[in-house]
Amino acid sequence: MKVGDRHFRSLWADVPAGRLHIIDQTRLPYTFEVRTLTTVEEAAEAIRAMRVRGAPLIGVAAAFGIALAMQRDPSDASLRRNATTLNATRPTAVNLAWALNRVQDKLLGVRPHLRAAAAWAEAQRIADEDVALNEAIGLHGLALIEREHAKHKRPVNILTHCNAGWIATVDWGTVTAPIFMAHDKGIPIHVWVDETRPRNQGLLTAWELASHGVPHTLIVDNAGGHLMQMKQVDMVMVGADRVTRRGDVCNKIGTYLKALAARDNGVPFYACVPSPTIDWTIEDGIEEIPIEERSADEVRTVRGLDADGKYSEVRIASAATEVANPAFDVTPHDLVTGIITEKGIARASERELLAFWPREQRSNAFLT
Amino acid sequence: MKVGDRHFRSLWADVPAGRLHIIDQTRLPYTFEVRTLTTVEEAAEAIRAMRVRGAPLIGVAAAFGIALAMQRDPSDASLRRNATTLNATRPTAVNLAWALNRVQDKLLGVRPHLRAAAAWAEAQRIADEDVALNEAIGLHGLALIEREHAKHKRPVNILTHCNAGWIATVDWGTVTAPIFMAHDKGIPIHVWVDETRPRNQGLLTAWELASHGVPHTLIVDNAGGHLMQMKQVDMVMVGADRVTRRGDVCNKIGTYLKALAARDNGVPFYACVPSPTIDWTIEDGIEEIPIEERSADEVRTVRGLDADGKYSEVRIASAATEVANPAFDVTPHDLVTGIITEKGIARASERELLAFWPREQRSNAFLT
Repeated sequence: MKVGDRHFRSLWADVPAGRLHIIDQTRLPYTFEVRTLTTVEEAAEAIRAMRVRGAPLIGVAAAFGIALAMQRDPSDASLRRNATTLNATRPTAVNLAWALNRVQDKLLGVRPHLRAAAAWAEAQRIADEDVALNEAIGLHGLALIEREHAKHKRPVNILTHCNAGWIATVDWGTVTAPIFMAHDKGIPIHVWVDETRPRNQGLLTAWELASHGVPHTLIVDNAGGHLMQMKQVDMVMVGADRVTRRGDVCNKIGTYLKALAARDNGVPFYACVPSPTIDWTIEDGIEEIPIEERSADEVRTVRGLDADGKYSEVRIASAATEVANPAFDVTPHDLVTGIITEKGIARASERELLAFWPREQRSNAFLT
Repeated sequence: MKVGDRHFRSLWADVPAGRLHIIDQTRLPYTFEVRTLTTVEEAAEAIRAMRVRGAPLIGVAAAFGIALAMQRDPSDASLRRNATTLNATRPTAVNLAWALNRVQDKLLGVRPHLRAAAAWAEAQRIADEDVALNEAIGLHGLALIEREHAKHKRPVNILTHCNAGWIATVDWGTVTAPIFMAHDKGIPIHVWVDETRPRNQGLLTAWELASHGVPHTLIVDNAGGHLMQMKQVDMVMVGADRVTRRGDVCNKIGTYLKALAARDNGVPFYACVPSPTIDWTIEDGIEEIPIEERSADEVRTVRGLDADGKYSEVRIASAATEVANPAFDVTPHDLVTGIITEKGIARASERELLAFWPREQRSNAFLT
């Protein structure tokens, strides 16, 4: 999407130079900063520190991480070791494992001296496919928004949590694709943007929507239930970090609370999910998905601009204050109205998801 | 309760000097600052700016505000005008109207030259009664916590939202009274403290619990649902700004989301409510309680300590970002397990609440 008048992807490779460029998302929306990664260690750090973030994007970044590793040491041992390291950077999103599996599968059939080139090519294919997946999700989601607008003939109010925008993917965004398309088609639309503590990724969503001219309102994470009670929300649309084969949706902490409020108020709740986010190996998300516990300092400090407009942070609690910081929660499938995928909108049920994806199209558990 | 080794109430009058002292809660927990109010305008400002906050405390502060008004002009016109002004400072909590009615009722039967003294005395009685109400709530809540502990013989995990602590009342606190009593009795207890954006009153709760030595963990508002799914919460206890006669609970924005998660996970949900918080004139909280919309800057900025330990703020969103900031929501009575009052624990139903309070003990709508 555009930043100012230039088109950007969230990351892009300079293959001849053997480098990967990323937009450093830890500085957004305050500063737009591009970083250059030249080693697999830098790629792992960028994922761990959430310089690149969003389930789809970290899968792509990890694939490029393998390319960086292969140009230094293309041995089988290096491939396995680096895939394992990259896979461990974030435990919850399954896209990491999916992308690393795919690159490994490909490279194990290639002789070592050709592996770097093959890795760059495969990572680039994954990146290009991600753009196509998001675009397809956008078209299916657009149809939903159009239908909602036809019903009431007034702006469609969508509530979203966290950032499932274009910078959480290579381009378009899973949730923002239908929103951008609806807006571009002239359908009046308004987005309630949860700030999404502790890291406030909602600010990234607000930045993306503002850049694209989509009307939106920033709210605290506490407000969504009340807005639904007041009939101010027509649908909830969120991304996902992992979806089980029966349709349990693991996403940013707090998503589950919005899904409960949606059910209580008859508001449809959709997850926008490219198929690499589906983990076919598990059924019960609450029992089986590992939830990342992140640093207490994410809760204790808040970043923003100080009185002089300088990027800064304030500490709201001292190191003496005990903190828990689980980064994700699981919305059980029965709270999910539909899963918007690149193939269409599936009900959150094993039967329907398996019917959408025949066995040979399903990804596997991480190969160690 | 104690701050350091000195016992404080949240506010206290110096009647001979005609002054009211308050702890300025906008600076807590970073700085402990006592302010002195000498006019009704200062009292109104202190309530509006949330220097004093918490439904019970703002009722008491408003009563003292009338005393400040009466010492300057004890006429009927002044009484009515100032009561109306004070009542309009915050629209949601009913304790304001309750306390102002009570003082007005009292003063209208008193000759003007005696009104200042009568107002100081009545406000002081309301303050003292508030302490007694909280203590009684504490004893009923303590019994619940004891029962929970007897069941499992492990620490009782209580989740709370916002601050219903001693500084939200004159002393004890509605939610903290049972917690302090349980802790003092040696019952192992642990409190999950929602930070409670946008104003982060959870930090006040954490400060109170730390001062009293009660184990607690600060969490973002998004985390509670996940903790309940993980069986980490034994009960939810919150305060209230207004409770309808059928038991709908209006409290800080986000409370409703926790109540939904509590029901979904079989966790009991209690509101700790002194009777002046009950509005007998209304039934349906969602339809009938006015929800205060506060300044967008509460959402756009976050206060804390900067790198030098100085009280400071950062701006997370610019003035160009549209913001909505509803301060309260309503938890419908059917999500409420029980209402812990000074008379005991009532089910959230009209029948039970009316049985607890015979007609002559019920407060009225605001007298204009």
